[in-house]
Amino acid sequence: MSATPEDIMDEPPQEAGGYELSVGEVMTTGYVSVTAETSIADAMDRFQEYAPDDPTRTTIYYTYVTDDDGRLVGVASVREMLAASNGDPISSIMTEEVVSFTESADAEQAAMDVGDLHYPAVPVVDDDGRLVGIVRSERLVDVMEAESSEDMLRMQGMNLPELTADDLTDVEEQRSRIMLDASIKDILTIRVPWLLVALVGGFLAGGVIGVYEETLEAVVILAFFIPVVMDMGGNVGTQSSTIFIRGVVLGHIDKSNVVRRIVKETIVGALIGLMVGAVAAVVAFLWIGRMDIAYVVFGSMLGTSIVAALVGFLIPWLVYLIGQDPAAASNPIVTTIKDVSGLLIYFGLATFFVLELGI
Amino acid sequence: MSATPEDIMDEPPQEAGGYELSVGEVMTTGYVSVTAETSIADAMDRFQEYAPDDPTRTTIYYTYVTDDDGRLVGVASVREMLAASNGDPISSIMTEEVVSFTESADAEQAAMDVGDLHYPAVPVVDDDGRLVGIVRSERLVDVMEAESSEDMLRMQGMNLPELTADDLTDVEEQRSRIMLDASIKDILTIRVPWLLVALVGGFLAGGVIGVYEETLEAVVILAFFIPVVMDMGGNVGTQSSTIFIRGVVLGHIDKSNVVRRIVKETIVGALIGLMVGAVAAVVAFLWIGRMDIAYVVFGSMLGTSIVAALVGFLIPWLVYLIGQDPAAASNPIVTTIKDVSGLLIYFGLATFFVLELGI
Repeated sequence: MSATPEDIMDEPPQEAGGYELSVGEVMTTGYVSVTAETSIADAMDRFQEYAPDDPTRTTIYYTYVTDDDGRLVGVASVREMLAASNGDPISSIMTEEVVSFTESADAEQAAMDVGDLHYPAVPVVDDDGRLVGIVRSERLVDVMEAESSEDMLRMQGMNLPELTADDLTDVEEQRSRIMLDASIKDILTIRVPWLLVALVGGFLAGGVIGVYEETLEAVVILAFFIPVVMDMGGNVGTQSSTIFIRGVVLGHIDKSNVVRRIVKETIVGALIGLMVGAVAAVVAFLWIGRMDIAYVVFGSMLGTSIVAALVGFLIPWLVYLIGQDPAAASNPIVTTIKDVSGLLIYFGLATFFVLELGI
Repeated sequence: MSATPEDIMDEPPQEAGGYELSVGEVMTTGYVSVTAETSIADAMDRFQEYAPDDPTRTTIYYTYVTDDDGRLVGVASVREMLAASNGDPISSIMTEEVVSFTESADAEQAAMDVGDLHYPAVPVVDDDGRLVGIVRSERLVDVMEAESSEDMLRMQGMNLPELTADDLTDVEEQRSRIMLDASIKDILTIRVPWLLVALVGGFLAGGVIGVYEETLEAVVILAFFIPVVMDMGGNVGTQSSTIFIRGVVLGHIDKSNVVRRIVKETIVGALIGLMVGAVAAVVAFLWIGRMDIAYVVFGSMLGTSIVAALVGFLIPWLVYLIGQDPAAASNPIVTTIKDVSGLLIYFGLATFFVLELGI
């Protein structure tokens, strides 16, 4: 069922982090407000006289009501005003439980709340409760669409400049279009840096293999399963971090439940590792015909899956705690950690099972 | 600048693909319509009398105008109606250029258009132009948010059941929450199948290494760079497919420009490969001290990057052409192709440079 105003007021949008748009940056000052003792007839006149700055904007059929200090105390819809007696003060028909956002609230979360509430606009107040603007839901639609595209691109290392309120007004400047229509030079400038960072992770993983050169020389077959182990970590880890990042963005994960969620994710990772690892071990055995190799594959898949799931949740959480954007910063770190640990587990087990226990 | 109604009517939303919500599935029949000769006074009465089925829904302050056959011919806002003479027919004040969507149009793209137009609702017509409903922008906000989450999760192989209109009404059933709050059994059911499919790719890649067992036995050092080559393909390929999938969803990529975009992306891939490959080759040389290894690393990074960029665009496009959801189906295919080709290029070059040309 839709959220009620009470739900929203109990769980208002969080403060916008440094990299996120705040409600204050996307609000407008084009609205009608009257003081509480204004008559409905006068309020209707104000409504009809009001000429918005931007005539392409649709009319907001509400009048916001403030006290003499400018604090938001109520709202009345034009429908309610039309149905009521003209001489009465507007306070007699206004709704006093007004949903509002603070200026500093996160715009994307506000957009989610607006989606639940279905209001065409929501008044915006400062820390003292004074009405300072309204944020139109159509504007929040722009925010949400742009932020979603942002997240998807950031997770793949395409670190575009921070979204500003100006970006929202021009559909032609959509980030996806930038990635498609920008000059090749600009595209490279956006994509290459992250790939160079990822290169570090690749060489660290290669270094792990280098440490185990002797093991590999003894049993070259071990190289065959490097892709399987690395892919496992990659796929599980990316699934986990995608789920986590969306969960944080949508407000489903916060300090009160994060530990519980990380524990659950680690258990899921272990079970995934057991199931997929078993299948992989069977295939490995059918291919190579050696039980020791099969054990090593099984153990590595299990270990890699646990590490990847845990890291896939933990790293974005730590990035989020220090105030950075988890969608942007997590991926190379998660990738490197799971590659390195996956290969350490794999070659460590191989050295033990295959060399120590004998071929 | 915002899109104008003319822009939208020139480029209406595409037909919804089989897996996407259509406008008809998310529209409502709660609206006020009158025929063109109705007087404004009567139309205002109709507006004030109209009691929506769902009282929590906000009022749509428009009256839609049809001809005697029910075809949509105009729209008038309550503001316009209040400012006009009561006795005149509504046709005298209505706007005749009405933006509307067809029932079969894609809901996510309609949401994007609504974001540009800033209307609280858009009328929906059938193929004969008859008014059959309206779609509220707040509903399209729900669509867009759900579809974005869908895409992100699908790309990581979490193939949730197709989004239906019911899913949109309940915030508590948001896909992200499902991935976090569902039973462990359900989570595994969603995540494991795709991981098993990915396992096939991993073993195919391992098989390529198996084919080159002799080369590897001769030069075990070659194993050190397997992660670097695989990561390159993975990162470039995922960047490319993310960009492509968002481009298709937002309507920036279509049959008229896809070939040009694929060519451009391949060039970008080549340039990325040159730049990142050069850095990787230098690092490889500093580590191992062998020019032939450095050449092999350079050539492989270049080749893998080209293949990954090309495949990252081509596969989602082919999936899209056959009417499937590119976000869901592309990833394992792209991953397998770029892993296998990356390793083929790597070991092929290695066999040539290192073995053929001598150590």
